[in-house]
Amino acid sequence: MNRYIALVMGEAAGVGPELILKALDCPQRVNFGSVVVVGDRAMFSRLSRDIRVPLPFTSIVSTDEGLVQAMRDGEKTILYDLDCLDMDSFSYGRPSADTGRACRLATEKAVWLIQNSYASALVTVPLDERSLAMAGFSTVRYETMISELASCQRGLTMLDVSGVKIFSHTHHMRLRDALDLVTFEKILDTIIKVDSLTQDRDIFDLDKPLAIASVNPHHADSLTWGPEEETAIIPAVEKANGIGINIVGPVGADHLMHRAAKGRYRAVIALFHDQAHIAAMSMDYEHTVTVNWGWPFLAVRVDRGARLEKAGRGEMIPVSLVQALTVAREYIVKGVES
Amino acid sequence: MNRYIALVMGEAAGVGPELILKALDCPQRVNFGSVVVVGDRAMFSRLSRDIRVPLPFTSIVSTDEGLVQAMRDGEKTILYDLDCLDMDSFSYGRPSADTGRACRLATEKAVWLIQNSYASALVTVPLDERSLAMAGFSTVRYETMISELASCQRGLTMLDVSGVKIFSHTHHMRLRDALDLVTFEKILDTIIKVDSLTQDRDIFDLDKPLAIASVNPHHADSLTWGPEEETAIIPAVEKANGIGINIVGPVGADHLMHRAAKGRYRAVIALFHDQAHIAAMSMDYEHTVTVNWGWPFLAVRVDRGARLEKAGRGEMIPVSLVQALTVAREYIVKGVES
Repeated sequence: MNRYIALVMGEAAGVGPELILKALDCPQRVNFGSVVVVGDRAMFSRLSRDIRVPLPFTSIVSTDEGLVQAMRDGEKTILYDLDCLDMDSFSYGRPSADTGRACRLATEKAVWLIQNSYASALVTVPLDERSLAMAGFSTVRYETMISELASCQRGLTMLDVSGVKIFSHTHHMRLRDALDLVTFEKILDTIIKVDSLTQDRDIFDLDKPLAIASVNPHHADSLTWGPEEETAIIPAVEKANGIGINIVGPVGADHLMHRAAKGRYRAVIALFHDQAHIAAMSMDYEHTVTVNWGWPFLAVRVDRGARLEKAGRGEMIPVSLVQALTVAREYIVKGVES
Repeated sequence: MNRYIALVMGEAAGVGPELILKALDCPQRVNFGSVVVVGDRAMFSRLSRDIRVPLPFTSIVSTDEGLVQAMRDGEKTILYDLDCLDMDSFSYGRPSADTGRACRLATEKAVWLIQNSYASALVTVPLDERSLAMAGFSTVRYETMISELASCQRGLTMLDVSGVKIFSHTHHMRLRDALDLVTFEKILDTIIKVDSLTQDRDIFDLDKPLAIASVNPHHADSLTWGPEEETAIIPAVEKANGIGINIVGPVGADHLMHRAAKGRYRAVIALFHDQAHIAAMSMDYEHTVTVNWGWPFLAVRVDRGARLEKAGRGEMIPVSLVQALTVAREYIVKGVES
């Protein structure tokens, strides 16, 4: 019963709900296993009519008891209707306090389902920080919100690009601030965490080393690096090697990503948002999903904006969500779950 | 007669000469047109035997008069033998003062051939900065050396990734130093230069805009940028628009590169080495070549290290040089030449 994926509707005024309808109605649906969507029935119904995609739910429930019964009945595609949106005021492309509140409610319920063993993993479509702010929530970033709901620290974010695994030492922040976080202690801490997170032989190739990027371009001819490599990254890698961690680097970020795409490493550690994301988007944008490690459950998401201008038009192709659901199922099968 | 490509041997102890032998012996050879290789006959002969690739030269000359005669005879693949290497001391993988001197001599001669209308474009394989330093040259970087030989300023470097064109505002320097060069004046200067360099309708799609990357990740939800965007990039783009330049941005570098790969822009401007190179290597490493604009002649090169550990082993695949020669010929045909 607990191998359901909890799939949250995200920002209702964005393209998330369309991605959900289409992903659950596509040929690859067979790869996702059982799914419980957490959202609003009236919104999905209207969207289904407007974009002419059938409602894919085999069962719609509105209470925990109903959910238990549907799961006992073996329903594969359940909608947990929270009846959380005022459809009279709802408008595609217009995030509001109401859609923000609904997004938060659906996320809370999905985490609750996992914490109470109704589901094994969390998959999320794009939310919108503005609507969450309009609804009065001070926490509007995805990672922070889930960390609070799960009562735990923010873990490490990893991009899975068709199987190439890219961790990042720093995330969505100004580059100068990110540079200040390239210190021996912080780099070593990230290396140790990534090493510890990548010990699952079913998912990571343990025969291969980790690899870490450089901050500065490598002067290959003179074999010299910049100050960040000399004072932080190289000593951290040496220290990590000393305590038995199989990691190489620093490697120039351009070459690192190229080699990673060839399957050379167990996983790589980028230092900045752009190092990881430029590589992922250039390798295979559609098949890039974000996996959050370090929470007590598996969480995979489509790391995109809510594309408000596209909402309700039926033009989206659900490749990214299909990939997120496929990766989540793959990891669940391999034993990574709550 | 002047539509020959001058192809320089680069670091003789590296893999450059092997790339040359193989590129001139491959099926795509028909795409390069006429080529004059500038290098050392004895070295190519030994390498040819050692890696069992036939010498591809239809004519070998050692004087300017001989070259003129060979060109008049319509020879397609000429070796200009400078007899510049001491083969008794030569060793694969061992750059020396002798190979540094030879590399410099061959480069000087190639530039001279172009300046004297014997050739139209310069194509270069990897050199090695250490051997140039061992030979006593204070100028060891490719761009600086060519700029000095051509008696002109260093121009702008552009990556051509299977037709996707990526300029870079800054080059191979420390990231913190590169950040300091993100100022309104310098960005505007780069935009104006790139716009001016991309006016050739045969090579660039003038109906499409230029686009420039951001320094910091975009907060898409809050629509906010960091200080570098607010104080330098956005004002420079607005100023450029005001004087009639068709440029959009800043665009988050990850999305920018993804859109560029889809052919959305005439050319893009990255701000740092890594933004351009991570994208290029992740999109299509083998088909990335570097084009230097702003010199009085077309210059295309294989932007790699000399791979000393691979020298003389016959294991290299010449895709990158084939691409460099193909791009050079394509640009020559379209009218970009000396």
